[in-house]
Amino acid sequence: MKLPRMSARTFTQYMPILTWGRAYTREQVTSDMVAAVIVTIMLIPQSLAYALLAGLPAEMGLYASILPLFAYALFGTSRALAVGPVAVVSLMTAAAIGNLGLTDPVQIALAAGTLAFISGVFLLAMGVLRLGFVANFLSHPVIAGFITASGILIATSQLKHILGVQASGHNLIDTVGALLSNIGQTNVITLVIGVTITAFLFWVRKGLKPLLISKGLAPRLADIMAKAGPVAAVAATILVTWAFSLNEHGVKIVGEVPMGLPPITLPSLNGTLWGQLLLPAILISIIGFVESVSVGQTLAAKRRQRIVPDQELIGLGASNIGSALTGGYPVTGGFARSVVNFDAGAETPAAGAFTAVGIGLAALLLTPLLYFLPIATLAATIIVAVLSLVDLSILSKAWGYSRMDFAAVAATIFLTLVMGVEVGVSAGVLISIGLHLYQTSRPHVAEVGLVPDTQHFRNILRHNVETRPHLVTLRVDESLYFANARFLEDYVLNRVTCDEPIKHVVLHCAAVNEVDMSALHTLEELNRRLSDMGILLHLSEVKGPVMDRLKRSHLLQDLSGQVFLSQYQAWQALSPAPGDDGPSAEANAA
Amino acid sequence: MKLPRMSARTFTQYMPILTWGRAYTREQVTSDMVAAVIVTIMLIPQSLAYALLAGLPAEMGLYASILPLFAYALFGTSRALAVGPVAVVSLMTAAAIGNLGLTDPVQIALAAGTLAFISGVFLLAMGVLRLGFVANFLSHPVIAGFITASGILIATSQLKHILGVQASGHNLIDTVGALLSNIGQTNVITLVIGVTITAFLFWVRKGLKPLLISKGLAPRLADIMAKAGPVAAVAATILVTWAFSLNEHGVKIVGEVPMGLPPITLPSLNGTLWGQLLLPAILISIIGFVESVSVGQTLAAKRRQRIVPDQELIGLGASNIGSALTGGYPVTGGFARSVVNFDAGAETPAAGAFTAVGIGLAALLLTPLLYFLPIATLAATIIVAVLSLVDLSILSKAWGYSRMDFAAVAATIFLTLVMGVEVGVSAGVLISIGLHLYQTSRPHVAEVGLVPDTQHFRNILRHNVETRPHLVTLRVDESLYFANARFLEDYVLNRVTCDEPIKHVVLHCAAVNEVDMSALHTLEELNRRLSDMGILLHLSEVKGPVMDRLKRSHLLQDLSGQVFLSQYQAWQALSPAPGDDGPSAEANAA
Repeated sequence: MKLPRMSARTFTQYMPILTWGRAYTREQVTSDMVAAVIVTIMLIPQSLAYALLAGLPAEMGLYASILPLFAYALFGTSRALAVGPVAVVSLMTAAAIGNLGLTDPVQIALAAGTLAFISGVFLLAMGVLRLGFVANFLSHPVIAGFITASGILIATSQLKHILGVQASGHNLIDTVGALLSNIGQTNVITLVIGVTITAFLFWVRKGLKPLLISKGLAPRLADIMAKAGPVAAVAATILVTWAFSLNEHGVKIVGEVPMGLPPITLPSLNGTLWGQLLLPAILISIIGFVESVSVGQTLAAKRRQRIVPDQELIGLGASNIGSALTGGYPVTGGFARSVVNFDAGAETPAAGAFTAVGIGLAALLLTPLLYFLPIATLAATIIVAVLSLVDLSILSKAWGYSRMDFAAVAATIFLTLVMGVEVGVSAGVLISIGLHLYQTSRPHVAEVGLVPDTQHFRNILRHNVETRPHLVTLRVDESLYFANARFLEDYVLNRVTCDEPIKHVVLHCAAVNEVDMSALHTLEELNRRLSDMGILLHLSEVKGPVMDRLKRSHLLQDLSGQVFLSQYQAWQALSPAPGDDGPSAEANAA
Repeated sequence: MKLPRMSARTFTQYMPILTWGRAYTREQVTSDMVAAVIVTIMLIPQSLAYALLAGLPAEMGLYASILPLFAYALFGTSRALAVGPVAVVSLMTAAAIGNLGLTDPVQIALAAGTLAFISGVFLLAMGVLRLGFVANFLSHPVIAGFITASGILIATSQLKHILGVQASGHNLIDTVGALLSNIGQTNVITLVIGVTITAFLFWVRKGLKPLLISKGLAPRLADIMAKAGPVAAVAATILVTWAFSLNEHGVKIVGEVPMGLPPITLPSLNGTLWGQLLLPAILISIIGFVESVSVGQTLAAKRRQRIVPDQELIGLGASNIGSALTGGYPVTGGFARSVVNFDAGAETPAAGAFTAVGIGLAALLLTPLLYFLPIATLAATIIVAVLSLVDLSILSKAWGYSRMDFAAVAATIFLTLVMGVEVGVSAGVLISIGLHLYQTSRPHVAEVGLVPDTQHFRNILRHNVETRPHLVTLRVDESLYFANARFLEDYVLNRVTCDEPIKHVVLHCAAVNEVDMSALHTLEELNRRLSDMGILLHLSEVKGPVMDRLKRSHLLQDLSGQVFLSQYQAWQALSPAPGDDGPSAEANAA
């Protein structure tokens, strides 16, 4: 039974707001608004910081946190997901735009918007075509390795802002090399601000909340204050920079940020640009979708709710198109902010819309205050946020569990660090698929015998079982398809090319979930070749769906032996062979 | 149990001649020499024709049929395989060389030799690294579709020689278009020769042998005479063309063919050329290997012998390097000639060496006689040979068996015809892998219940079984890996998000041959999410190797439920649940 597909999606299914919106209560409004305030406070510095990480003007981070949130509130199915700029997607945006070799800021912003637009169209198309399963080909080791490597890359890329030097590069070697060659130009004041704020934010994250609670503060309030740590750091460094005119002493500041609501922007329709951005947009879409869906599912399960992955594609697609049309860049559902939103009590997607209003007010009113904000403060915010993504223990976990998974993780981390995000994640996917195919191309095959006094058959190498010299029973622990069909043929022919008087080969098919046409061809060949050797080929315990299909071929007519419903029936029918010793008494009696 | 690997291969294993050579008897020498004479007669016109098909001078076909045969006799494991130029590889060579846009015949010959050299090195490397399994990724539908489409392409490409017009193209549309636009320049004498010889060869193939036998000839002699049909056609058309000077009336002839043994040639070491030829060489190697191994296995099985695929790679690699060093082009084991060799009684690879001597004598003595040979005769030889490869019934067979396999065949045939051989076969491989992954990414999952009065569990949709409202048992008919892990999670969460008072979910894992790290992660998540919903997750009938691996993870400690050895134990332990009806009497009594 396949997953039951929904019949043609109705309008209501495309607009989840029509479901939850009708039952929206006053209590839910209150919860959503409280959550929105907390998320807004957290999102303002993050939005600015991620825009800088993406190599874009700070205000684009704010713009990407307004309309996309409304769009997701309309079309998304998760009740707690908070959409906006996130670290990994910002890094991938930086890499995609960096490859274009643009220098004009207007062109760069246009390219970023176009990237969001292509990504949005791609996500929408995947959603309408219900292609959400494509994301499944990103295996867990590849995602874990990619996120860890991205965290390292992002943190390293921000060190230049902490040191106050020039350095750029889209992989670890370039970035570290550029840092080391310019380290002599370190600006001491910038360094002091950067290190202080980094240390402060780490402390806020680990130590502030327990401290406040121990001082008698209510846990909820302590939590909100801890979340406001980055805002406090922003406010404090703005004040210090302004008071001492630190910008005149080499401290880089954000500078003029346009005041007002996001502008209406249109994506470029330049075919060459689309060609250059298509692959990055697809990778950004899929990575973003995977991040968003895994957060959404985790949070939904906690309240016994469900999200609909194909509808999530539509929600994220609409968000990205919204971002493209209002001066933003690619967005997705972020892990940290969604958890904050959920913990703060958000009950419906309306919380996202309220957050959007908050960010909109910030864009409208607060941008002049950001003039003196040191870049080093934003860099510290990013470093503290992304270091929580870095988890090298995945390497040892994978090593302990399976060498194949380890190879996929290690290759993804290594290639992401050395060759950049796009090569890293693409190679990771190809390596996992290749290793999976390699593994299924050499399936586990066990020669089995009868466990005395039972009707069960077990591996002759692991158990003390009865066998017959003229009868070989092979249990194939894998579906038979093109990649392993010839392996099985080789295996069987190798096994029977010996001095034993083999007369029967039984393939025990209980774990064979599929026999494709290549495997069918191989079974026909095997049947013919064994016949040429005077050996009969039998099948046992063939599954219903596999049998249905085999009946549509010539195999069953041509088969030299029989098809047995159970392996025990095969054993009973095929022993004793004429001239051989009969089977033992207990086997017959069973 | 994996296929037992040979321990480090000994010198004898790399040189199979050391095994059969020691026991070589006088009877075997006689059998081999008779087979060699028959194969030589068949191979002379074929070698010339395939060289022309590859767009190369006719003598290169002879050169490719001398040293490669000695090399295979030294290193190959098949006793009957006949190596040399074959139709599909010649077509692929034409496509590869055609892409280079060369016009100088010397450069073209150099490129063909280099192609054989790269192919030989690649095959040798695959053999030493035991990578023969890579060929398994060419599924049967893809190979069948590719061979059929190649047959059509080759036959069409030869029509210009039958008509005596100019026309070229590497796909069906170009070729047919060029033919139609030049059909007005048809040379009538050429057309008469071409059609007559084609008809004659078809008759020889179908009607001559039965006729000779009905006239009282011994079947063996009738067979040899039928095989000599192409040689007779060659001799007759040479005589007619010479007698009436048809070459002065527009009949294209082979012309001067250098007399003597093959020259010593060296491959180009130009990096750009290697870059351009690498991918074609890999495709040629793999296609050639697959063709050769499938012929070799078929023939070996008839005598209860075995071939060793990894050693075959070495044999074919040596043959191609031999071809490259002596003025030839890529070669492989051919189907038709190997069957002839086998039927003619070849008992050891020495038959191939004797054939090489025969072709060598032809190159040394007979080439002046080939001056007046019409190209149309060679084209007729090719057309008759390749039309036996065309088998469009594979389309209807695949349609009847499985839509996926049909899609792979149809796409391979269509793309090979329209886009050429390289795109066709590459797309076929990618499509089969993609469809396989798609299929395993949506595994068959059955909800099962207890068949009354037994310990067996069956699909609740197909059978009349007992179920319990608080207990859901799902049987997963596929290994769990990254591509289907999330599908399972969605499936289970969808199933339990309902109004029934579900307390237990049992995953029945008898058909789960593998749980990779992504699936492990999903099971951990599923366990956590079900716990959040107050539902316990249990496993039953987990296979030994899978259990070994799961023990190295945290899943078993964290699992909210239990692991049961059999599904029936799970059923007994989990029903009755407190407050529910107890299980029925017969279930308890069983």
